[in-house]
Amino acid sequence: MKIPKPLTNVIESFQKLPGIGPKTAQRLSYYLLHVPQTELEHFAESLSKLKKETVLCTICKNVSEYDPCPVCSDTKRDTNTILVVEQPLDVLAFERVGQYDGMYHVLHGAINPLENIGPDEIFIGDLLSRVKSASVESFGEVKEIIIATNPTMEGDATAMYIAKKIREITTNGEVVKITRLGMGVPTGADLEYADEATLREAIDGRRAI
Amino acid sequence: MKIPKPLTNVIESFQKLPGIGPKTAQRLSYYLLHVPQTELEHFAESLSKLKKETVLCTICKNVSEYDPCPVCSDTKRDTNTILVVEQPLDVLAFERVGQYDGMYHVLHGAINPLENIGPDEIFIGDLLSRVKSASVESFGEVKEIIIATNPTMEGDATAMYIAKKIREITTNGEVVKITRLGMGVPTGADLEYADEATLREAIDGRRAI
Repeated sequence: MKIPKPLTNVIESFQKLPGIGPKTAQRLSYYLLHVPQTELEHFAESLSKLKKETVLCTICKNVSEYDPCPVCSDTKRDTNTILVVEQPLDVLAFERVGQYDGMYHVLHGAINPLENIGPDEIFIGDLLSRVKSASVESFGEVKEIIIATNPTMEGDATAMYIAKKIREITTNGEVVKITRLGMGVPTGADLEYADEATLREAIDGRRAI
Repeated sequence: MKIPKPLTNVIESFQKLPGIGPKTAQRLSYYLLHVPQTELEHFAESLSKLKKETVLCTICKNVSEYDPCPVCSDTKRDTNTILVVEQPLDVLAFERVGQYDGMYHVLHGAINPLENIGPDEIFIGDLLSRVKSASVESFGEVKEIIIATNPTMEGDATAMYIAKKIREITTNGEVVKITRLGMGVPTGADLEYADEATLREAIDGRRAI
């Protein structure tokens, strides 16, 4: 017995999503058979509109309904600091904390030679021209760049590359402070299970209390 | 900062699916931003066609493209046996094994008083009339009904109810054998971790070797 074609189509679409295997895809698709048609249409419509009705903010490259995005057009925020992240979801994580009130820059990835992602495939160039043009117009001058790429091989390499490039373009007098997120043991962690690299970072980054 | 509306719509749709929480829904939705528009349209179309292009087989109530479904219209299968399951996915599980070559009947649920699902909310009546009409027409007479509802409280209650009802309608001479799937320890299990109910069933259902 074969699964009916309309079902296989849905199963295949679900299976392409990250973290969803064949079994889960089947379960989700069969579940949808019990859902009212109006809800299915709503789901379908939201999918087809997802990219049509969103844009990348020309300033920070975050996903947004409007351009510039709510953060970049918010006059109450500190334009002197740019926090650089890999993904739009990372912006959400920082906004949930509510402590940071500067600008963002979303790279949409990290340098990853194994997957053929070089500096030109992600929005590093845009970050550099943002820093450059801000200093030329001396309006909203960038004083600090916080690099908050993921603490992985790729994220670290991207951070190093960005720091190097920014130092290159800001040699003419002005000083841009470049920082990286603090690293160490996360809150609530069990030291017994912390890996060596994390503990090494935690010792290096120790602070006086 | 708020998540753009087109994204929230997709997130909400994903979140309604079983086993998908807010975090996973967010991750999946943001992932879809990197997917080509054609693929999104394909996903959307498959969702909106899912229910329009499938029917429930009038005989076995399984989901199918055609009516009657491939199993019910397959003349090579044994029409004397009906295997009763809760969900269409259960049919798939048995078909994957390939050992069973009789007919199926899909209940689309189990009796569950807590969720207001009584015998009339699932396809029990259709099963009974199937058994009755088969015996009247004495064509494809039903000789055995294998009840393969889940080994849960609800599944057991449903099995008992069906057995009782079938005995009621088949008092006029003919005998329909009613069986329940064998229960016990599953292949590959570790006895140490088997629960009491399972071990009790395993002892009750012991077989000579």
